[in-house]
Amino acid sequence: MSLPPVSRVVAGRPLAEEVPVALVFNGTTQAAMMATPADIEDFATGFALTEGLAAREEIGEVEVITQPNGLEARLWLPEERAAALAARRRAMAGPVGCGLCGIDSLEQAVRPLPRLAAGTLSLSTAEATSALDALRQLQPLHDETRAVHAAGFWHPDSGVTLAREDVGRHNALDKLIGALLRSGAEVSTGALIVTSRLSVEMVQKAVMAGAPLLVSVSAPTAHAVRLAEEAGLTLVSRAGGRLTAFSHAHRFSEDAHAG
Amino acid sequence: MSLPPVSRVVAGRPLAEEVPVALVFNGTTQAAMMATPADIEDFATGFALTEGLAAREEIGEVEVITQPNGLEARLWLPEERAAALAARRRAMAGPVGCGLCGIDSLEQAVRPLPRLAAGTLSLSTAEATSALDALRQLQPLHDETRAVHAAGFWHPDSGVTLAREDVGRHNALDKLIGALLRSGAEVSTGALIVTSRLSVEMVQKAVMAGAPLLVSVSAPTAHAVRLAEEAGLTLVSRAGGRLTAFSHAHRFSEDAHAG
Repeated sequence: MSLPPVSRVVAGRPLAEEVPVALVFNGTTQAAMMATPADIEDFATGFALTEGLAAREEIGEVEVITQPNGLEARLWLPEERAAALAARRRAMAGPVGCGLCGIDSLEQAVRPLPRLAAGTLSLSTAEATSALDALRQLQPLHDETRAVHAAGFWHPDSGVTLAREDVGRHNALDKLIGALLRSGAEVSTGALIVTSRLSVEMVQKAVMAGAPLLVSVSAPTAHAVRLAEEAGLTLVSRAGGRLTAFSHAHRFSEDAHAG
Repeated sequence: MSLPPVSRVVAGRPLAEEVPVALVFNGTTQAAMMATPADIEDFATGFALTEGLAAREEIGEVEVITQPNGLEARLWLPEERAAALAARRRAMAGPVGCGLCGIDSLEQAVRPLPRLAAGTLSLSTAEATSALDALRQLQPLHDETRAVHAAGFWHPDSGVTLAREDVGRHNALDKLIGALLRSGAEVSTGALIVTSRLSVEMVQKAVMAGAPLLVSVSAPTAHAVRLAEEAGLTLVSRAGGRLTAFSHAHRFSEDAHAG
């Protein structure tokens, strides 16, 4: 099966492509969104974990099917997850229609998050700078189109060796997390490095994946900082040119193992 | 009723705030999303129009209520719209759960758009440059936080006089369109100027609002260009530093009424 191209030349300019992707769990659609047509297996795997639909060990193979109007990623979760899937379909928050009253849907919008373990991982200013620079070298689609986001995984032993790109910033993060899971990597041993604004949803996804650090070139929102504080996540941003830790700064230092 | 602040100082830095906003039509939630807590009446009005939930004349007053977990915007549409609202709740595409199979949900993701009238509006390179510069002067929250999007309305007689900001680019556009509707302006007489990438959803919203031109500092996706071509919308982007028309270029010229 061949996917559509990730970019096309229009009016002499390479533009990023986007296609509708339906994520179909146990036979019904949990989400349909526009995405870069690449790494769809990673996308579905990451989304299942970061949206709380399944535990890591419950996520099996993803089947990707080309449909006339887009791509369909099929994934089967254990039967005991069926009730949770149905409930989420009814009550999903996000740019979504549901039958809930306003108060219930507002509660769903910022769902409770697990608390991350303290762990021992830390990142220095020099390491964060290197990680952001390394991610920049792993963005072929952005080099071509200047219009897509990226998410990369930094490990203290190896730096940033894995990255994923997408027209959507949440999708890029889900793809990266899915790729880590499918490769057997332990997300808790490293930091997530992204190119995009650190919003509530980015914090939710990082925490659900078990990452202790989320680093971006761009700024967090105030709400994202509060959520990161509660969940035990370290948020670091280079917005304004200077690296700043906005929550759980104990994992970020100016001098720890610099280099 | 007072809304939460649109920014907060965290770690000595002004950060954009974001809060859950539920858009409740005829008593049930059509959407719940994170947004900048300002211009919520405009947001609900614009969303109702650009998502095809109601015709302009059907949209009345919006009631905004502060709830413990966010804001609720209540809007009542004529009874004959109830069936459309219920259908959309069941079948909504976007980052959403629904009971549809993959093929049906992919069809929903790129809904059919009306065809824009040819009209007589056009924009020169000089006007587009002025419009982008003028929008930059109407972004107080971005000046403070460097982390929000904006959408402005350009009219050939007056330039850009109205703009709206939001942490989300779709929200900024919906707020602007809602503000235009509530002020009685004719969207078809001007151009929409935005700071964000021109994706399929931005094209959908511009066309539903009846705007003949959508101009951005950032790049379109290839899919957005195809959709704009079909719907009769002129897409202009300054990505890469040079103003380029990607669709219906007859409304864009290097010299027409320059100045």
